Amino acid sequence: MRPMRTDPPPAAGTTPTDAVVDLSAILDAAARIVPYAQITPVLRADALDDLAGCELHFKCENFQRIGAFKFRGACNAVFALDDATAACGVVTQSSGNHGAALALAARLRGIGAQVVVPENAAKVKRAAIASYGARIVDCAPTMAARDAATAALIARTGAELVHPFADPRVIAGQGTVALELLRQCDSIDALIAPVGGGGLLSGCAIATRALSPRTTLWGAEPEQAADAHDSLRANRLLDDRVPDTICDGLRGHLAPITFAILRERIDGIMLAGETQIVAAMRLLWQHLKIVVEPSSAVTLAALLAAREHFAGQRVGVVLSGGNVDLDALPWPP
Amino acid sequence: MRPMRTDPPPAAGTTPTDAVVDLSAILDAAARIVPYAQITPVLRADALDDLAGCELHFKCENFQRIGAFKFRGACNAVFALDDATAACGVVTQSSGNHGAALALAARLRGIGAQVVVPENAAKVKRAAIASYGARIVDCAPTMAARDAATAALIARTGAELVHPFADPRVIAGQGTVALELLRQCDSIDALIAPVGGGGLLSGCAIATRALSPRTTLWGAEPEQAADAHDSLRANRLLDDRVPDTICDGLRGHLAPITFAILRERIDGIMLAGETQIVAAMRLLWQHLKIVVEPSSAVTLAALLAAREHFAGQRVGVVLSGGNVDLDALPWPP
Repeated sequence: MRPMRTDPPPAAGTTPTDAVVDLSAILDAAARIVPYAQITPVLRADALDDLAGCELHFKCENFQRIGAFKFRGACNAVFALDDATAACGVVTQSSGNHGAALALAARLRGIGAQVVVPENAAKVKRAAIASYGARIVDCAPTMAARDAATAALIARTGAELVHPFADPRVIAGQGTVALELLRQCDSIDALIAPVGGGGLLSGCAIATRALSPRTTLWGAEPEQAADAHDSLRANRLLDDRVPDTICDGLRGHLAPITFAILRERIDGIMLAGETQIVAAMRLLWQHLKIVVEPSSAVTLAALLAAREHFAGQRVGVVLSGGNVDLDALPWPP
Repeated sequence: MRPMRTDPPPAAGTTPTDAVVDLSAILDAAARIVPYAQITPVLRADALDDLAGCELHFKCENFQRIGAFKFRGACNAVFALDDATAACGVVTQSSGNHGAALALAARLRGIGAQVVVPENAAKVKRAAIASYGARIVDCAPTMAARDAATAALIARTGAELVHPFADPRVIAGQGTVALELLRQCDSIDALIAPVGGGGLLSGCAIATRALSPRTTLWGAEPEQAADAHDSLRANRLLDDRVPDTICDGLRGHLAPITFAILRERIDGIMLAGETQIVAAMRLLWQHLKIVVEPSSAVTLAALLAAREHFAGQRVGVVLSGGNVDLDALPWPP
């Protein structure tokens, strides 16, 4: 498909989020996390350039600590707390990478972390969260139960909530991905990142608009979890979609803050089907020799489906993480 | 098992190979291949350090061009040729990474390459060699037939033979792996590399002995392809072993030149069983988030089996390549 351009573009500077996350917040985040986070490499492969008909620069967050970009935002949030707040610990709800990221960040600061996890969460993810020293709090597998369990924890312990994406500190942390990429690669014509809750793409959009205004900015989303695509097209937040995708990191919906950031800054959301996502994941493993999860591969899948749009360009592609169950790979078919 | 120390160590400087490959040849190789080869990253993972009880620095040749260190040696050999010799092209026999490496190096120099491939070679490897533009010459799947086909080609075309490992130019090229690693990491206590024909370990041994004499040097070899281990222990070249290992890059035997280099310089060969190699490969994928082939994983497998020997040390571990059939992974069991 051709990338969808949000039309008409809303006027800039009309939401309160502008005051909350800006380049300066992202630069502060970068300084805050530098003792803990990896500067991840940018990899290339001739074979993928040939396939795509453009120059692909892959920002490899699968090499980030806990195996995903999520460590950046969680680390920034945890180390931004004043000592009194930090002393009460942090809490979040997550069955995935953000839970592990918050657990590790809290351990590095020497404070407690509690993660509300639905009872049906994958054992391997639960184990990862526990392995970084967080306390796991079980809840029924509904949003209402998760919210109630989280609220109860906060009321009882005074712990600070660090939401996986609807949190300016988290968004600023994720923005350091684009900050690094733009330092590592000159003259990027287009930047593509996966979009689930929108924290990564929001942070990257803010950094890129400030540092490289001519770079076009694209989200990549599974067709079967297209709430961000549909919300931007409708110009209102739609959160009634039921995602059904292999991309377990992209099943969340945009929040008001990420919706507001994205509608002002990005050029569009590109979609990719499930078969294309698996094929792209296999291409990344084969040619880059790296392990990435399906949520990362949606970027290459969407780009290949819209390759005529990027012909000859220098494209930055954010590969968001590499936490995949090696015993349950989606191939051979 | 405990690493085997070659005992007694033969006197140094007793073979003609000393004159052929030395640090200067490796420095020349580094300068020759720098326009073409990747400087590959060194990766680390806390989880693997914890498992091994030491500090592991993985030199990731899976990111080298054609997906394996073999490009270094082939590139050095091809670009070391004088123009008249080069004009006749190059030839080798290989069903694996060296064939692809020589094909790419020849293409980069703009000369022809012919690769003698046994009829029973894997389709995927054959396709890789062809994809870099080499001419494939089929032969019956015996050493005699391969040698005869190669000799006939040389007689007819005047092409230069570039052996996969029994060639000083190739050994010097492979030595650039250690040269880079020692520049990237200070104070390496021990270095481990896989050993098949011995070209990689020989080059690394020469570079390391010259630049970091206190670093101990270890080969890692499958128990079921232990010709190098047995040859060094017997202090004579044994080439009657029939390898039976998943490590398709390590089924070759030492040649006189690599045997002579290794017996003078390395501290021993460590062995690993097939199950341990597969488990180590999975650990590398899981924790480093990279795709490496079984021949790479023999290093970690052997190290974990001898972990008490390296306790607390800084260990350089050469991961030799990442060319693996993603549709036929050795797990789940």
